[in-house]
Amino acid sequence: MSDTREQILEQIKVQGDLVRQLKAAKESKEKTAPSGGGRVSSSGAPAQRQQQQQPQKQQQAQEQQQHEQLHQIDEEVARLLALKATLGGDAAPTNQKFTLKTPKGTRDYGPQQMTLRQGVLDKIVQVFKRHGGEAIDTPVFELKEVLTGKYGEDSKLIYDLKDQGGEILSMRYDLTVPLARYLAMNKISSIKRYHIAKVYRRDNPAMTKGRYREFYQCDFDIAGTYDPMLPDAECVKIVSEILDTLDIGDYVIKLNHRQLLDGMFQACGVPADSFRTICSAVDKLDKSPWADVRKEMVDEKGLDEAAADRIGEYVRLSGGAELVEQLLADEKLKAVPNAVKGLEGMKQLLKYCSIFGLDKRVSFDLSLARGLDYYTGVIYEGVLKGESATVASPAKTSQQNGEQANEPATVGSVAGGGRYDNLVGMFDPRGKAVPCVGVSIGVERIFSVLEARAAASGLKLRTSDVEVYVASAHKGLHEQRLKVLNLLWDAGVKAEHSYKLNPKLLVQLQHCEEHQIPLVVVLGDAELAQGLVKLREVTTREETNVKLEDLAAEIRRRQQSSA
Amino acid sequence: MSDTREQILEQIKVQGDLVRQLKAAKESKEKTAPSGGGRVSSSGAPAQRQQQQQPQKQQQAQEQQQHEQLHQIDEEVARLLALKATLGGDAAPTNQKFTLKTPKGTRDYGPQQMTLRQGVLDKIVQVFKRHGGEAIDTPVFELKEVLTGKYGEDSKLIYDLKDQGGEILSMRYDLTVPLARYLAMNKISSIKRYHIAKVYRRDNPAMTKGRYREFYQCDFDIAGTYDPMLPDAECVKIVSEILDTLDIGDYVIKLNHRQLLDGMFQACGVPADSFRTICSAVDKLDKSPWADVRKEMVDEKGLDEAAADRIGEYVRLSGGAELVEQLLADEKLKAVPNAVKGLEGMKQLLKYCSIFGLDKRVSFDLSLARGLDYYTGVIYEGVLKGESATVASPAKTSQQNGEQANEPATVGSVAGGGRYDNLVGMFDPRGKAVPCVGVSIGVERIFSVLEARAAASGLKLRTSDVEVYVASAHKGLHEQRLKVLNLLWDAGVKAEHSYKLNPKLLVQLQHCEEHQIPLVVVLGDAELAQGLVKLREVTTREETNVKLEDLAAEIRRRQQSSA
Repeated sequence: MSDTREQILEQIKVQGDLVRQLKAAKESKEKTAPSGGGRVSSSGAPAQRQQQQQPQKQQQAQEQQQHEQLHQIDEEVARLLALKATLGGDAAPTNQKFTLKTPKGTRDYGPQQMTLRQGVLDKIVQVFKRHGGEAIDTPVFELKEVLTGKYGEDSKLIYDLKDQGGEILSMRYDLTVPLARYLAMNKISSIKRYHIAKVYRRDNPAMTKGRYREFYQCDFDIAGTYDPMLPDAECVKIVSEILDTLDIGDYVIKLNHRQLLDGMFQACGVPADSFRTICSAVDKLDKSPWADVRKEMVDEKGLDEAAADRIGEYVRLSGGAELVEQLLADEKLKAVPNAVKGLEGMKQLLKYCSIFGLDKRVSFDLSLARGLDYYTGVIYEGVLKGESATVASPAKTSQQNGEQANEPATVGSVAGGGRYDNLVGMFDPRGKAVPCVGVSIGVERIFSVLEARAAASGLKLRTSDVEVYVASAHKGLHEQRLKVLNLLWDAGVKAEHSYKLNPKLLVQLQHCEEHQIPLVVVLGDAELAQGLVKLREVTTREETNVKLEDLAAEIRRRQQSSA
Repeated sequence: MSDTREQILEQIKVQGDLVRQLKAAKESKEKTAPSGGGRVSSSGAPAQRQQQQQPQKQQQAQEQQQHEQLHQIDEEVARLLALKATLGGDAAPTNQKFTLKTPKGTRDYGPQQMTLRQGVLDKIVQVFKRHGGEAIDTPVFELKEVLTGKYGEDSKLIYDLKDQGGEILSMRYDLTVPLARYLAMNKISSIKRYHIAKVYRRDNPAMTKGRYREFYQCDFDIAGTYDPMLPDAECVKIVSEILDTLDIGDYVIKLNHRQLLDGMFQACGVPADSFRTICSAVDKLDKSPWADVRKEMVDEKGLDEAAADRIGEYVRLSGGAELVEQLLADEKLKAVPNAVKGLEGMKQLLKYCSIFGLDKRVSFDLSLARGLDYYTGVIYEGVLKGESATVASPAKTSQQNGEQANEPATVGSVAGGGRYDNLVGMFDPRGKAVPCVGVSIGVERIFSVLEARAAASGLKLRTSDVEVYVASAHKGLHEQRLKVLNLLWDAGVKAEHSYKLNPKLLVQLQHCEEHQIPLVVVLGDAELAQGLVKLREVTTREETNVKLEDLAAEIRRRQQSSA
């Protein structure tokens, strides 16, 4: 042992010298080198700009070099600390200089959370597959240009990668733009695909509410040239099936139409070039009262007060098929072709939703706007209601909206989507469009709700599937345990044991109770001499002797009878 | 329609003006602004350095502003192009200015690849669960400091995120360092966890061989203070179970021990501070012949020629338990405590592997080094053999190694891992160690092998699970289709239909044949009037009339009888 220790001490000495040399070299360079770019004379004349870039490049190269030097020092210091750590005990220094944490807005999933999460994702995939979805996956980052111009005001939330030479990359912001890129790149004109993956937004995290910077999206999209509202209605049906199967409480699916919104803006006197920005303001109605949104429209976005008030009248409305009829008869709206088209689409959508048994689940809601630029038709959002609140009945017409005080508290949007017929065309060299409609499930919020519920109930989920634990009754049996384990594993039985040579029987049995493992095989010399092992049920503590060669089959038999 | 078009044209005009204004503003600024930092006088005196940073900061702020300006212009141009695209047809410009591709070294997975991939991952998870693994997940990026000093020479391959204000982040390089961070942060001293996720390396991609910049790792690790080689041997067993269940051909699991390597280097006369760098050179023996590796040791790493030649003698050796005995008797090695300890560990490991039935699968191989710095004990690597090559029998002693010409061609490493007892301690403020051993499955290479095989066989995998297609025999039945679909979905049947109002029957039946959908429900007025539908088997074309209320049950019955 002392040899090893001496060797490590020697390595530490050498590594320490290296770090000191590097630091000294850095300092002497800083003293002698001119501060970068300092000698460049100033002149704005365009003809000289080319030449001026030369020293700038030199400066950049110098900075790059300094950067690399610092990086090398960091690396070597870390290595030194690692060496010191191998000595362990008192000799180990405080080698952790930064707070141990995950990046802002992100979190780890431990076994409990993963079990919960996997259960939710499995149920969602089941629904996607029930509707014929095929899976695809795309890289976590894209060429930055792919994301440019797709997200409107939200584009500032995109994570960029550092320029380390080569392509300029950004982390995906959603799964919709990568899908559009995939379809255009591979010239696919129809697909029904689902995609479950993490997306990234440099937003202000609110982790208790399930708002993260890294979060899962579960998307289902139908691409292809089809007849109106048939794929759209199926997406709404998928949202309802998922929220039903997850059993997370009462919900409503709000529906609206971008063409109707545009038509309404036009009817209210909003200039055409302000449609998108006014739409962004309306989108905030789920979080802010109308007074604030009106203020944003008028003060920040320069909308005429009268126009804002006219919008205010419309966005209070929600209801069902009868609201569509009411609006089709509205003098201002029926003069605008876009509005009429949107309303006719809504009428058809509501009819299909009715066939799908969703009358009590959907609500045509003129305050629904959705933030993203790329929607062109139907938009929808699944919203959880507070536990005590009941779902607003779409049969009653013209309910008050937008006035938050009158509304039951909601835990927020858990699904959203809509039609985007032009996004794929933006990627196609000849602008060839592939009409798409899709939905994205906000599973993080669903996890949050279910985690809070699990925490409140105090229920602990099983986090492993182990069926049998192989235990030693006394010392000296570890090789026998390995033989039995090998036999079980080869028969496909999920089995584990203590990784100690001579664990105490009580400790082994306690492990089984804590981890809810149903069966234990207890090995002892007396039984082994006869080719037998004890099979014990953990809950009943009932024990039976079983022949070693029958063990796997006996375990299978018990599982089937207990299932 | 003309109204909408006119509106869009108006929006295009406005947006075009905005872009022109922004561009003009940028140009006029460039003409009048001084070129950044140009007026700073040069002086290296330390006392003045502080003040010089002021203008540099100004320059940075200016550059930042210019950057944002450019970003805004890009955004607005993209929006303009998007508007133009909505006009469609001839009016749509060539709006794709960059090559449509995924970032270098990455790829999309289409439905065929996803089906293959999901099958592989499911099998791997099954093995992990058979050994009692619990799942965890960590964020795709970490604080940069978490990764610093962990990867030795490979740290240059780490992807960094751009500094957008806030924390400095890097993409994870493997799943091992995040696990160590997770254990230290949560003060977990024992866990058996698996983690399946993508990792990122700015390496030179070789995509046909399955070497990507974004790729999946499937890791299984056992953390905790246990008796020697019990968890280690189980990791080797897991590798063999996975490679067996995936059925990708003949393989060998090479074993070695870092303590033995260090002892061997010491015995050969390598200075202690060169152990890691010489180890990196040995690691290249799977790709380069001994002559090249020797050259690297002597020419680049300054090793004594005689020492290199002594190493050359050892790294040619591979075998089984008898090779351990031979080396325990080796004069040079038995004088070095580290070497003896490593050999004793190998002896125990080989014994456990033998109990697990792995005699023909494992090979003690002195040329195996593994690149990463953090290993402290056993290391192993699962290597696929070329189709025509047979696995080297570990029963035969002292085979020639390192001389590539004599070796059968291998398609490379598909699994690797080892023991790392100090990594968690590097994150703990008091250096508290948690011993760990683990294995990582290189699934991308496995996908590559299986994809090539699938392509060669011409077999097409089913990419959706649809059980029933609902078809119209004639016009005007789309609402009836929706009713039948709703009934099937609510009963949990996987069903789809055409999203056309009036699709041709032949087209619908062809869709079923192409997509291998086993059953079709054919709706027609005559049958519907009697509450009946036709149920047709796609392969046999056999048709039966079924009552609508019995349909779901009848489909379930047929599935069970055909399964």
